Parts: sequence; C-alpha cells; structure tokens
Amino acid sequence: MASKIKQNAFYAQSGGVTAVINASACGLIETARQHKKHIGKVYAGRNGIIGALTEDLIDTSKESKKDIAALKHTPAGAFGSCRYKLKSFEENQAEYERLIEVFKAHDIGYFFYNGGGDSMDTANKVSQISQKLGFPITCIGIPKTVDNDLPITDNCPGFGSVAKYVAVSIREAGFDVASMAESSTKVFVMEVMGRHAGWIAAAGGLAAENEGEAPHIILFPEIAFNKEKFLKKVNQCVKKYGYCAIVVSEGVAYKDGTFLADAGSVDNFGHKQLGGVAPVVAKMVKDALGYKYHWAVADYLQRAARHIASETDVEQAYAMGKAAVEYAIAGKNAVMPTIVRKNTKTYKWSIGEANLSDVANVEKMMPRKYISSNGMHITQACSDYLLPLIKGESYPPYKNGLPQYVVLKNEPVKKILKKKFVI
Amino acid sequence: MASKIKQNAFYAQSGGVTAVINASACGLIETARQHKKHIGKVYAGRNGIIGALTEDLIDTSKESKKDIAALKHTPAGAFGSCRYKLKSFEENQAEYERLIEVFKAHDIGYFFYNGGGDSMDTANKVSQISQKLGFPITCIGIPKTVDNDLPITDNCPGFGSVAKYVAVSIREAGFDVASMAESSTKVFVMEVMGRHAGWIAAAGGLAAENEGEAPHIILFPEIAFNKEKFLKKVNQCVKKYGYCAIVVSEGVAYKDGTFLADAGSVDNFGHKQLGGVAPVVAKMVKDALGYKYHWAVADYLQRAARHIASETDVEQAYAMGKAAVEYAIAGKNAVMPTIVRKNTKTYKWSIGEANLSDVANVEKMMPRKYISSNGMHITQACSDYLLPLIKGESYPPYKNGLPQYVVLKNEPVKKILKKKFVI
Repeated sequence: MASKIKQNAFYAQSGGVTAVINASACGLIETARQHKKHIGKVYAGRNGIIGALTEDLIDTSKESKKDIAALKHTPAGAFGSCRYKLKSFEENQAEYERLIEVFKAHDIGYFFYNGGGDSMDTANKVSQISQKLGFPITCIGIPKTVDNDLPITDNCPGFGSVAKYVAVSIREAGFDVASMAESSTKVFVMEVMGRHAGWIAAAGGLAAENEGEAPHIILFPEIAFNKEKFLKKVNQCVKKYGYCAIVVSEGVAYKDGTFLADAGSVDNFGHKQLGGVAPVVAKMVKDALGYKYHWAVADYLQRAARHIASETDVEQAYAMGKAAVEYAIAGKNAVMPTIVRKNTKTYKWSIGEANLSDVANVEKMMPRKYISSNGMHITQACSDYLLPLIKGESYPPYKNGLPQYVVLKNEPVKKILKKKFVI
Repeated sequence: MASKIKQNAFYAQSGGVTAVINASACGLIETARQHKKHIGKVYAGRNGIIGALTEDLIDTSKESKKDIAALKHTPAGAFGSCRYKLKSFEENQAEYERLIEVFKAHDIGYFFYNGGGDSMDTANKVSQISQKLGFPITCIGIPKTVDNDLPITDNCPGFGSVAKYVAVSIREAGFDVASMAESSTKVFVMEVMGRHAGWIAAAGGLAAENEGEAPHIILFPEIAFNKEKFLKKVNQCVKKYGYCAIVVSEGVAYKDGTFLADAGSVDNFGHKQLGGVAPVVAKMVKDALGYKYHWAVADYLQRAARHIASETDVEQAYAMGKAAVEYAIAGKNAVMPTIVRKNTKTYKWSIGEANLSDVANVEKMMPRKYISSNGMHITQACSDYLLPLIKGESYPPYKNGLPQYVVLKNEPVKKILKKKFVI
C-alpha cells in the first residue's frame, strides 16, 4: 500500500502506566516530527481514550524538542492515562461513532494506541469500524504492560524496568534481613504486582545468583498455594541460611481460586480487609513458626521506578514508538510492532510485527518450564529469558539530589465539535 | 594523652542496618590498616555485640583490599548486626565482665561501636567499666541511624540515603497517580519508617518543589493526627490537583497516643491486625470520601536501597569510620565523631566530636519550625536543612543488570576462652 496523504495523528496512553511508556511517546513524537510530509501534528488524548471521546486533545507540537526528549527519562503517562475499555461495537456504537467524528473533525488519519491486551483490542476495533463508517484510519498498537503478558512479542516494554526494580529490591532487602536474622527479623515478604501472570515475581528470582541468596521462595499466581509445603520450605530456609526472603505475587491463590489476599480477612465491621497478600503470608509464618517478620508492598513504586529503569527496556520502549510511526507511514494497518529475540548467544533483538487481532485479549502466562519443580522458584531457562531484559542502567538526570522528570505544557487543541460527549 | 601501644581493635554494627553502615566499616578498616603501628588487627563482632559476648569474632585482616573497598557500596551489615541492648552494670554485671574478658583474651584495646543512641550508651558504659575492671579500653562511637534522631551531630549517616529513597519514590509514585487520577486511583499513601521522629517522612516533602506536586500531605509522629482536618485536606487536594499523594510515618498517632496502625483493627479471630498504617489511612479516605486508592509500605526496601544512596551520605558514613580510628589513635576516648554543618551559603561540613555521655539515649525530634503551620508538610527551613543530605548519586557497580554487593568471607578468630557465655 502506498503512503497516505498527510494527516494528523492521535496518540493515547492506556491502562496502568509504566516507567517507560513515555519513552514510547518520545520515540513516536520524535519520529513523527521527522516525517512531516506524512504526518501533520501529533495530538495526544488527555487521559487516554477519554480525551478522544470528549474531544480533549493535546497539541504536542507546542512542546519543545527538549521536553519531548525528556519523556525518554520520565516515568508514568505524560498525557494522562485511563482505565476505560470501549464496549463492543454492538453494545455501544455511539462511542465508536464519536471517535470517528472527532478524528474526522481534526483530520486525524493515524491512531496510535499505547497499552496492553485490552487496548490492542480497541485499536483493532477502531480500525475495522473506521472502514465501515467510511473514514479509514491507520491503527497501530504500541505494546505496554508491566505484566509482560502480551502474546507474540518476546517481551513487553515496561516489564524490564519493573523486573529490575524487583530484583534489585529483594537483593537489597535480603542483605538487610541476613544482617538482622540472628537476633531479630528472620522472614521478609515482599509483595509485587501481577494478578494473573507471575512474570514480575519471577524477576525477583534473578537476585538469587548463588546458593542461599535471597529470594529463597517465590509464590506465583500460576501455582496453587500449598500452605503446608510453603511453611515447610520457610522453616528449612531459616534453619539452613538463617533467614528466608520471599517474593509473593499479589495474585497468589489457593487451589479453589480464592486469593490469599482475600482469604478470611474481614474486619470487625464486617468489611473485607484492605488488600495486601504480603501481611497475610507474613502472619501465616508467624502463627505457624513464630519467626519475627517484616513485609513490604511496593505497589506503584515498582512500576514508576524510572530511577532504576532497565536500559534495555528504555531502548525497546523508544523503538516501539518509533516503529509504530514507520509502520503507519509504510501503510501498515491493524498491527503492533513486537520485540523479536534473535537466536544468538549474546542477547540481540529486532523489531517484528503482529496483527492486532492476534494480540487482542490474549494473556501470556509463565510457561511451567520457567518455574522450578517445587513450584517456588525459577529455572535456569527462566533466568536466561529474563536476565537480558533488566540489563543496563538508564539513569535520569538529577538536580539537587532529585531526578528531573518533565511535566509537559499539555496545551489543548481548540474544540471544533458542538456536541459534547458524556462518558 | 599520648598514643597507646599497639593493640587489636573490635568493631561491631548495632541495631537496624542502613544503606551505608558498611561504608563506615570500610572507612574504619581501611584507616586502621594504614595505622598498623597503633592498631593490630580489626576484629568484627559476628552479629554485633553478641559476637563479643560469645567470643565469635571475625578476622577482617583475612579480607582482601578489594572486598573491603566494596563495603563502601554494599548495603546492610556485612558482619551481622543485632538488636541486643546491654543492661545496666548493676543489672547484669556478668555481661560487662565477659566483654572485658574477651577483649583481654584477644588483646583488644579499641572498641568501636557503630549504632544509634542505645549503642552510644553501651559504648560509654564499656569505657567506664573497663577502667573500673583494670583493663582500660578506648571506646569510640560511630553514628548510624536511618531515623536521624541522634543529638549534637547535624545529621546521621544512614539517614541521607533513606531520605533520598523516600523523596525519589514519592516523586515517581506521584507522577504515576497523576496519570491515572482521571478515571482510576486518586489517592496514594506511602508509609515510611520513623516511629518517634518524623525526619524520614519529612524527606518525602523534598519531592514537592512546585505547587501541586507530590506529596501533598505528610503525616508526622510529632503531630497528633486529626482525622477531620486530614480528610478535609485530602479532599481539597483531589479537587484542586486531581489527586492526593500522602507520606505517612509509621509512628503517626492520635492525640491520646494510640498509633493509627493499631487503632480499631482486630480481625475476626480477635487478633490484632498486622501493622501497616498506610492501609489504615487509605481505607479511612475511601470510607469517608469514596476515592479509589493505592498504598505502599516500603519497609526494609527504604533503608537497604543502596542503589539510590545519597553521595553525601556515603561520604559522611565513610568519614565517620575513618575519624573514629583517628580519634582513637589520638588518644580520645568515650567520644563519637559528629557531622558539623558549616555556616556557609553552599553546603559544607566538617567533622566534630561529642561525648558519648551527651549522645546516649537522647532522641532528636523534628523541631516544630520544620513542620508547616497546618502540621501536614515541611517548611522552607526544613527543606534547606534536608536538601544537602540527599545530594549526589553514588551508584554501585552493576553486572548483568544487578548491583554487585560484596559478601565477605567472615573467617572466625580462633576462640581462646574455655568458658562459654549464654545470651
């Protein structure tokens, strides 16, 4: 397909943000600015797709070259993200019609959607429906998720940095607990994200390079929790190494599907207790074995930790944004650039592509061969897969001891449509 | 006093460890090695003072120059620390007599104790009692505490790094929440250490350089918690900035002294609920205002985070270890080196000294003038005090994406005494 006539582009960030989603934005905007023959302005949706529906667009051409470059080292979503999934065309035709109306009004011929599986589904639907409604739009997905659960792509931008954070953090906490164990804390539990897929928890395993190093136990959402087996292992570790460091995925559940975080925890008002699987696991150990414990819940700190981002991750996130523009200009449609691992001894990657229809709504779980036979650690194969993804440090610039992250001007594009749209 | 004859030295790490206590150990051992005329071997207590009582000494002369140098970038306590406070001489004379017995047996004439207020008290007592028992020992304290609550010294090694971690983390999480607030999380609560003194919580305030930046609210242990006022402020922030980021000290309490973390939280088995003030505060906001929340408890991650250590802190920690040896050789006794802030426009510091008797068991709280008038943020004076302490990045070396922290050989010194000592 030949390249299209010059039109504006729409870019939106979707779902939970990451340490490097702005690096994808940076790659996209910088590349679009190099292709002014094809792409006019890049409009960003304020708060993701909500900005498109409400015609609340941000004119990124108003941002300086320097500020756009700074996106590469700035965590979170510079234009705002949202948790808002478009319904099916049948269920809410009005939403899709509104999108096309807004795109038409602002001469938007390119739709770039930076998100996870749900977002790829949305991008795919917009592509189909734009054709149907007579205003064809080039739709390109840009992968993003800390959970690393997108199919086809070897890994997913956002994951490498959270993986690095988790591996570094449990190594450091492990050193701490080892120092204290003789007379104080013997068990440390660190809770990490990943409600369905255990990739983030697995990354913690990278810290254990030698026998006896933290973490000693990893609890995956893919493995049904066995209390007896777990407690036995904790006790063995304390006896053998003096302490036990545990990484637990927020999504760990019993065989019947009950999340540990939810199990039997209703407060004295009858309210369900505040999440947190780490305190539940820690207390379980205390009650059964009597060991003094500490626990941590990293929550947003892990996915926002740009200060300890993986260089590989930053580069790949940037490359995905760049490739998205190049694919669009080349006339590709309804695709998502992917990361392809080359079959070489040292880690090398290139950029591939996947059809959005193949990516949409598919969750990639940890393969069983990546989890050790006892279900509580990672295998060498897993380590071989994960290690390159956390490689390299990509430090942000600092001033007065603090990282310098950019806040964009985010100037609105003048509204054209008379009709308001209520979300 | 003239310099003493050559004797061995004893060094021990005490209490909760920090990201830079090993930097003090590094300064001490490297400096001692340069003064072989005065100091023979440096023996470290395995697991702190417990190692002295049980005659479990580590011969640091068996460690390579390279490994000792690596202590400067390794978090936690390389020789093991302990939570063990010696009783008074009257209460447990046997402990002190045992210490002197062990020191005599191993020709130890220098006692270096690296810890907080309790440890300075112990070092002071050992000094007094060693004279009394006819085996005078030079006792030097080396300041260490993440809580920054030692008196006389302008600040305390260990604090600057946890302060930097907290400021960086709440800045990053603030960016995250700001991105999500339109359709998802509006309130974020981060719990930090500091049961009595709010210095660590205060450090979070450094992240808010401009109007509206995270954190919007800081809850200090020094200020009685006022629920109504707090909730009003949360609501104001959400209305004005779209979101509210909160740093809460673990030690926040109501006017009557009840810790928030303990208040009204008994589970349905009648057990007191697992600590964590962050979830309590988050749920309070949800119940009153209905906002979606996230919370994090950094726990050990904050004090072990050598990857984001303050350069100032690392240098000061090293300098304290070095000064301790120099003071000892110069014949000083029962003192602790301190950090003295010079009255200059740009931050400069030098090394001073304090008598252990003046440091022992005194807690330095946040002065009221460092807390804003509404009790929920820091003042410019506080920021001026804190900023230099987080300045500079002192990154550890990395290999395969992970920080390379040293694990010492920790070879034991042959026991001489026949009698065992039971702790």
